[in-house]
Amino acid sequence: MASFTFRRQLTIEWGHCDPAGIVFNPRFFEFFDTSTWLLFEAVLGVKAHDLASVYNIFGIALVDARANFLKPVKFGDVIEIVSRVSEFRRSSFDVEHRLSVSGALAVEGGESRVWAVRDKNDPDKIATAPIPPEVIAKFG
Amino acid sequence: MASFTFRRQLTIEWGHCDPAGIVFNPRFFEFFDTSTWLLFEAVLGVKAHDLASVYNIFGIALVDARANFLKPVKFGDVIEIVSRVSEFRRSSFDVEHRLSVSGALAVEGGESRVWAVRDKNDPDKIATAPIPPEVIAKFG
Amino acid sequence: MASFTFRRQLTIEWGHCDPAGIVFNPRFFEFFDTSTWLLFEAVLGVKAHDLASVYNIFGIALVDARANFLKPVKFGDVIEIVSRVSEFRRSSFDVEHRLSVSGALAVEGGESRVWAVRDKNDPDKIATAPIPPEVIAKFG
Amino acid sequence: MASFTFRRQLTIEWGHCDPAGIVFNPRFFEFFDTSTWLLFEAVLGVKAHDLASVYNIFGIALVDARANFLKPVKFGDVIEIVSRVSEFRRSSFDVEHRLSVSGALAVEGGESRVWAVRDKNDPDKIATAPIPPEVIAKFG
Repeated sequence: MASFTFRRQLTIEWGHCDPAGIVFNPRFFEFFDTSTWLLFEAVLGVKAHDLASVYNIFGIALVDARANFLKPVKFGDVIEIVSRVSEFRRSSFDVEHRLSVSGALAVEGGESRVWAVRDKNDPDKIATAPIPPEVIAKFG
Repeated sequence: MASFTFRRQLTIEWGHCDPAGIVFNPRFFEFFDTSTWLLFEAVLGVKAHDLASVYNIFGIALVDARANFLKPVKFGDVIEIVSRVSEFRRSSFDVEHRLSVSGALAVEGGESRVWAVRDKNDPDKIATAPIPPEVIAKFG
Repeated sequence: MASFTFRRQLTIEWGHCDPAGIVFNPRFFEFFDTSTWLLFEAVLGVKAHDLASVYNIFGIALVDARANFLKPVKFGDVIEIVSRVSEFRRSSFDVEHRLSVSGALAVEGGESRVWAVRDKNDPDKIATAPIPPEVIAKFG
Repeated sequence: MASFTFRRQLTIEWGHCDPAGIVFNPRFFEFFDTSTWLLFEAVLGVKAHDLASVYNIFGIALVDARANFLKPVKFGDVIEIVSRVSEFRRSSFDVEHRLSVSGALAVEGGESRVWAVRDKNDPDKIATAPIPPEVIAKFG
């Protein structure tokens, strides 16, 4: 079953790169984090900064992140990142990010996130909650 | 009149550097921001993350930052940053940072900050408040 | 005399912001650095990553950076940055950046940079060189 | 067989944290990257910035990175990162990072890296090379 896909382009900046002249790996996790926010914004029609208040959640908290670096990405490269939720579970979900340069896959990223709320008994703690069915439905 | 001085050393990391092999300038502003927090922690005896609650403030908000880059700083360089408040005013103050490599001054930084509180009438807005005399006194 | 102006928009990301929910100051210096690269690219018609090879320089090295923070900038804010060279000197120049949110000026930034080349006698050292008149001419 | 372990402590800074008041995930990948450099420095007795020239390599290039976030890490937390090579293969190896706060595991990180050299036929390309046995031997 096809799932909604979010696509964006950006150009690699000087400050994204390390002394080897290629993107410093933590930057890719920044790119992926932002793509996930934008994917949810696009699908749900809710601005990223309103997501917590609209759904009465703490956020969509990251529990696992991974990336596989297939080709170096350099200063000035125009990259495209294509992101989608690959699986929804009761209170967690997986996001896949495919980053390519000139059509060639350069980095594959993955995230697992939870639908996070403040713990009723201890507001300093975070708990997970079931993802609302209407949220899942919008992803198609 | 002498003022309290905070001194720390750190080693320049791979990820601090840009394709020219030298520290990417925003990193220096990160270093200076942290040095200011640590200076206040050292002088006031209050952990940086407790500063807001202990003094009932929003924070020590930055209103101006500047840096003068005299010599390139490279991956592996051991740097020393010496920081002090150069002037206290009623509700604002200036911090001076001197960053050196092997005893030679490499970057001079400066910050102006305000003693910031939440506005009584609109908690979404930030206002300035007089710096408590006992805070100023501790800086000597 | 009017000088070429470069204008871009971006949306503040979650990862740009600090625990106060506003942009962490070093990020502004990243934004300004990128705007300067893009300004040169737009004016000279040379891709940022080709600038060094086309003009046979080490780069446009930063010697001074400063910013004045007038209003907090928050997650989700759409910002506009307008950048221009305010002055050319023999081998150095100043860049002005005006960052606004919804038309209101939020951060004023400034940079001084030099036209940097490798020292003829010691390739590990950086020297300054006169800015080519045709470069200055293109800025109008 | 026991392998050499590298251990370091650091304190979470204001600028490491996001609007939720916890460390923004890409920062952990920065911490892990630096720990790997420091692990190699400690084991091989070669400064991180001399590694490439001493071993005549391009670097120890990252091909895969992953992290599992078990507990939130907050501003002011004193963290300990314990790092070790968990496996050496012919021209690649895995690094494990365990990050804890007050003795409780908070983040598990993993990296796969290759012993990278410039391609003989095309210096713009990167190839892998066998890891020297004396390097592997030093890790115990």
